[in-house]
Amino acid sequence: VLAIIGVGLIGGSIGLAARRKGLFSEIRGTTRRKETLEAALSLGAVDRGFSNAVEAAEGADMVIVATGVSLIPEYSIKCAAVAAEDAVITDVGSIKGWIAEELSGRMPAGRRFVGSHPLAGSERSGVVNARDDLLDGANCIITPTDEADEDAAARLGEFWQTLGMKVFKMSPAEHDAILAAASHLPHLAAAALVEAVPDTAMPFGASGLRDTTRVAGGDASIWRDIIEANRDHAVEAIESFEAELAVIKGLVLRGDWNGLEEYLNRAKAKRGKRFASKGRRLQ
Amino acid sequence: VLAIIGVGLIGGSIGLAARRKGLFSEIRGTTRRKETLEAALSLGAVDRGFSNAVEAAEGADMVIVATGVSLIPEYSIKCAAVAAEDAVITDVGSIKGWIAEELSGRMPAGRRFVGSHPLAGSERSGVVNARDDLLDGANCIITPTDEADEDAAARLGEFWQTLGMKVFKMSPAEHDAILAAASHLPHLAAAALVEAVPDTAMPFGASGLRDTTRVAGGDASIWRDIIEANRDHAVEAIESFEAELAVIKGLVLRGDWNGLEEYLNRAKAKRGKRFASKGRRLQ
Repeated sequence: VLAIIGVGLIGGSIGLAARRKGLFSEIRGTTRRKETLEAALSLGAVDRGFSNAVEAAEGADMVIVATGVSLIPEYSIKCAAVAAEDAVITDVGSIKGWIAEELSGRMPAGRRFVGSHPLAGSERSGVVNARDDLLDGANCIITPTDEADEDAAARLGEFWQTLGMKVFKMSPAEHDAILAAASHLPHLAAAALVEAVPDTAMPFGASGLRDTTRVAGGDASIWRDIIEANRDHAVEAIESFEAELAVIKGLVLRGDWNGLEEYLNRAKAKRGKRFASKGRRLQ
Repeated sequence: VLAIIGVGLIGGSIGLAARRKGLFSEIRGTTRRKETLEAALSLGAVDRGFSNAVEAAEGADMVIVATGVSLIPEYSIKCAAVAAEDAVITDVGSIKGWIAEELSGRMPAGRRFVGSHPLAGSERSGVVNARDDLLDGANCIITPTDEADEDAAARLGEFWQTLGMKVFKMSPAEHDAILAAASHLPHLAAAALVEAVPDTAMPFGASGLRDTTRVAGGDASIWRDIIEANRDHAVEAIESFEAELAVIKGLVLRGDWNGLEEYLNRAKAKRGKRFASKGRRLQ
């Protein structure tokens, strides 16, 4: 039995993918709103819907807490207490250090929490946008904190691999530093960029501005929680970005056009190693 | 007769669209490389290919200089000298002030230069990616500098409208200030963002980082020229952006999470007025 606490875009996509792979005899899910639960059931993301997380997790072999970050520790502990012996409890939150601290020493005996962060998403949210291939080919970071977690981490890694993900293992702090730069910073930069464009110029923003600021269309309350939980790394990432902008501004002020071209070429090459230049969809 | 000097993505798309609308008895084009010219001919972007801009422009009713920004003034003057009496000479460059300064008092008698900036593009370049609908529904800014240009500006505006564009008229300086914020800044910000992400974090950048930095995959030499020609406005735009980042950093450092959420919501709403939130393609 798999229990997904919070069947939204990610939770729903996990349910659909796990069903496609036939990994569990039953997939249970909870949502805050009744209509969402009905959608999850009719889309086949879950077999049985619950309004209560503890009921959904009862006897489950795996519990995936896919709620907002701030609720993850509480749900993880409550669900672990009623899950099967040896159950793996995980989450899909975008930060890992704060969750690990909150859970430290509080997990019920015999149940293991190992954090997960599947690096997949979309600016669309909600179970209605879930897809059974959303996770396919994307990266997933898992963050065991304890040697005793090794077996649980191995089972969890295998689970994500079966859903088509590339699995990486690191500490919660490493995860959070990496994500601050690769994910949280782009969100903050996109919001700052929107605010830096005068209202009179907005109508003339074309595909460049559209794409550069796309993530600023995300849910502000989710990002507020993520930044709050990853404050120090977020500040470091902003400061690295400020330093790079200062380099560019210096080149422009000095009229060092060769230097600017080299800078732009360096950035282009670095980006090209990660993303195909033609804008094709890479998870 | 229409002469397109530099048949790349934009020049080629103009040729295809003008042919679809049947606006000219002949569409001529030049390219730097022979293979590109063959591609332009076989795609139907031009009827006749030339290696020499002056030959292509001879007797033309409209000349569109679609080369790199730094070459626009020179080609405009040379082509104007041989174009038909009353010909409209225009360009598609991303900056307008520097071009207007370079051309001031240098246009041959009876020929009118009125700058254009069709705000359409793609990270793909070259005539092979040209499309007859690339300009459809997109904005086009035209920048007449002289009252004597009025008739030419009217004809030019009508031309872009016939190709499906929404036409706006403003001064070269207004154009450059607006584009510095709406286009040049996103390019610089994208490059700075790539450089601010540590190499170890790059593999974990997902769709957020991919989209936010997409424009950093553009041609560095083109952007170097644009920024050089729009230096003062670019510096102003960078400084506005630095100020916004400082606001965000202040909110994070002070732990003002309500303030951060308000900031993110403000940016989201402002962006949403210009771009559909679902990432659908808007020119």
